[in-house]
Amino acid sequence: MNIDHSGATDNSYNLDSELIEAILDATAERNHGRLINRIKGLHAADIADLLEQISAVQRADLIELWGRDFDFDVLAELDDKIVDEVAALLTPRQISESVGELEPDDIVDIVEDLDEKRQDLFLDALQGHDQAAVQLSLAYPENTAGRLMQTHVVFVPDNWQVGEAVDALRSRSGLPEDFYHVILTNPKIVPVGQVSLGRLMASRREVFLSDIVEGDFRAIPVLQQQKEVAYAFNQYHLISAPVVHEDGRLAGVITIDDAMTVLDDEAEEDILRLAGVGNESLTDRVIGTTVQRFPWLIINLATAILASMVIALFTETIQEAVALAVLMPIVASMGGNAGTQSLTVAVRALATRDLTAANFFRVVCREALIGLWNGVAFAVIIGAVGYLWFGSQLLGLVLALAMIVNMFIANLSGILIPVGLQRARIDPAIASSVFVTTVTDVVGFFAFLGGASLLLF
Amino acid sequence: MNIDHSGATDNSYNLDSELIEAILDATAERNHGRLINRIKGLHAADIADLLEQISAVQRADLIELWGRDFDFDVLAELDDKIVDEVAALLTPRQISESVGELEPDDIVDIVEDLDEKRQDLFLDALQGHDQAAVQLSLAYPENTAGRLMQTHVVFVPDNWQVGEAVDALRSRSGLPEDFYHVILTNPKIVPVGQVSLGRLMASRREVFLSDIVEGDFRAIPVLQQQKEVAYAFNQYHLISAPVVHEDGRLAGVITIDDAMTVLDDEAEEDILRLAGVGNESLTDRVIGTTVQRFPWLIINLATAILASMVIALFTETIQEAVALAVLMPIVASMGGNAGTQSLTVAVRALATRDLTAANFFRVVCREALIGLWNGVAFAVIIGAVGYLWFGSQLLGLVLALAMIVNMFIANLSGILIPVGLQRARIDPAIASSVFVTTVTDVVGFFAFLGGASLLLF
Repeated sequence: MNIDHSGATDNSYNLDSELIEAILDATAERNHGRLINRIKGLHAADIADLLEQISAVQRADLIELWGRDFDFDVLAELDDKIVDEVAALLTPRQISESVGELEPDDIVDIVEDLDEKRQDLFLDALQGHDQAAVQLSLAYPENTAGRLMQTHVVFVPDNWQVGEAVDALRSRSGLPEDFYHVILTNPKIVPVGQVSLGRLMASRREVFLSDIVEGDFRAIPVLQQQKEVAYAFNQYHLISAPVVHEDGRLAGVITIDDAMTVLDDEAEEDILRLAGVGNESLTDRVIGTTVQRFPWLIINLATAILASMVIALFTETIQEAVALAVLMPIVASMGGNAGTQSLTVAVRALATRDLTAANFFRVVCREALIGLWNGVAFAVIIGAVGYLWFGSQLLGLVLALAMIVNMFIANLSGILIPVGLQRARIDPAIASSVFVTTVTDVVGFFAFLGGASLLLF
Repeated sequence: MNIDHSGATDNSYNLDSELIEAILDATAERNHGRLINRIKGLHAADIADLLEQISAVQRADLIELWGRDFDFDVLAELDDKIVDEVAALLTPRQISESVGELEPDDIVDIVEDLDEKRQDLFLDALQGHDQAAVQLSLAYPENTAGRLMQTHVVFVPDNWQVGEAVDALRSRSGLPEDFYHVILTNPKIVPVGQVSLGRLMASRREVFLSDIVEGDFRAIPVLQQQKEVAYAFNQYHLISAPVVHEDGRLAGVITIDDAMTVLDDEAEEDILRLAGVGNESLTDRVIGTTVQRFPWLIINLATAILASMVIALFTETIQEAVALAVLMPIVASMGGNAGTQSLTVAVRALATRDLTAANFFRVVCREALIGLWNGVAFAVIIGAVGYLWFGSQLLGLVLALAMIVNMFIANLSGILIPVGLQRARIDPAIASSVFVTTVTDVVGFFAFLGGASLLLF
């Protein structure tokens, strides 16, 4: 995130560190009144952030002191990783009294992350209708639209007029907390369009709903992957969309706040995967994180050893001119950086679907040319550096040639490797980087040391 | 983006490559009817993606052939970088006839990216009210809430009842296209709350609006940075929020689709910056991109040369044992990777505001420990490799010790450097990586070669 120098309006929504301290002080002193006083003005999302930032011991103390007033909305906002830890601190009585206040889709989100024993506690706490809704959702596979949707939907027959719909809404008790559209369904309860509440509000009673439906209508299959759902919401600026069973019947509705959470997670995943970090959060334990980061590092070790083996081919050459050992990491490092630039652009473009068969060839040529031009530019610079540092024109020439070769190959593999991985159905975000840097290390050392052994001696 | 093996529901929204080809064929054959036929079912956002993926020449041909039917919504969906290029292909008559169909906030978004001459063409095409709205928005600094908001707002006095509000809405002509709340204002036109259309719809006519306002109400200062606005929408699950002048008066309203676009851009920016790539898109020209990537590479060259200078300190040592030249990149590379893992987690946590004063110390200790444990694990592995490869226990020991030191320092600098940069008001996403890899290269070479010169001879 870019930090501007504008000052005043910057980071306006940061949790105030004085407030955090006051809350921790109140907790340490076991002062219930002061804790409630400090915490009550905060949004559940901010309290969740606070809980994520303090230690596990502080969390336990705070939640114990908070006691019966604990806001269950906080659970829905918490990082998946600590939902179960926090839920374990609540008494069965608290759970049975308060779970019912949550929306079913939030409960699904919480229950997914709970220990089996606690799942039952939460499910048992629900009333008949809500319990059925939650269990229905949980019956769909993880990461599908079915897990994301609300089953509490506002729909009316597609041959109704505005007046009928408005009267029906007004007479219904228990409309959903957040809804933005009235869905029109045919007699088989298949959604055929939707009318925004704004349009409904602004139209005369005798207007037919079918005459004021939104132009762009999309129904989401209940088994669609959540990342696809998020893409659709983002691409088509949806606010809410009906979810349908395989036979087209209405199953539920997804609203933008749920889609936004998924979109956020996807972007986060891409950033972390590019660096070889899994689904990691700051609340994870040290040993867990150490073990999680290990596989990426061991793969990197293997590739580093491979690069060393290339160097080992040229030990005699290095023995004769130790300057080569001094300069060789430069060529490899520059290739690694150029390749990383290129692969990051490619991985991102694949994720946002901006890189397709239609522009693949042009993008490859583009990267190759960028690699070539920057290769030439840096060949001139590094050639001069090598010559001035070690006083050998030939050494400068070898450096320059190796630089061109490696930067060209770096940019080319930076685009070809992610696309190839995607075609092989391997996540390019997680695997591209290791392949590309292996290529740039191996090519870098080989081109430089090989060139030296040919030209210098 | 993770590619699952689920098949069927995957990439459901990808632009069909057959469709793209059919459109390009129609364009090449200058067959207007077939082009329109193919393109008319597509959402403006998909057409914009298509235009981004084809070449500049194809774009020009397509838009010329599309002619008077060109959908101006496409302009609002296009990548900023090619808005001006595409707008230049439209005739002044097309512009004056069609610009008025767009929402003022979309026009602001387009006009921002236009050449000055074309800006006037667009502004002149607007009617009095819309023109004033667009110019008002453009008067606010770039990247502020004022540029993002719509000025067409639905607000009513805060002492009204539901019935009054509903009647007023129904009698008003020209309500905004998308609105989700009725904003309540006091007599000074300061927003004091908002009622969702769903609540309004479901309530009896005699209920006072002030009794059904949303619990969580946030007004956004007109000069607030857009990334702060996006954060608030995401954190607090807002759908729309009023924008206010410095004196608290209502200035406009921001809806979630606008905030989502900003959020998306921010995530994209972070990913690209971590790899040393600027605000780059696949539609950029080769030379422009080459030049844009150059600064990062030249900084990397400087740090690579710095690392080489460390190696140069030990040329005599290397001369005596050329195995050192073979093995030294391994230590540097492992440090670089461990540091990148750590800094990526830190940069992301800073961006999402999950890393604050409240957990800074604990996170630093956590990273140090992760570095230490993985350092020890890899010390054992690489020590064994070094011993087995070159048959020297001492060489294995030197490798192992250097590995522990470098991975420990790598993880520590991976957290301290981003936080330090953030405090110094430098974007950690763009600068952390170069500092961290400099540290890991220098420490890696120094620890390994220095250790070798002490212990081996």
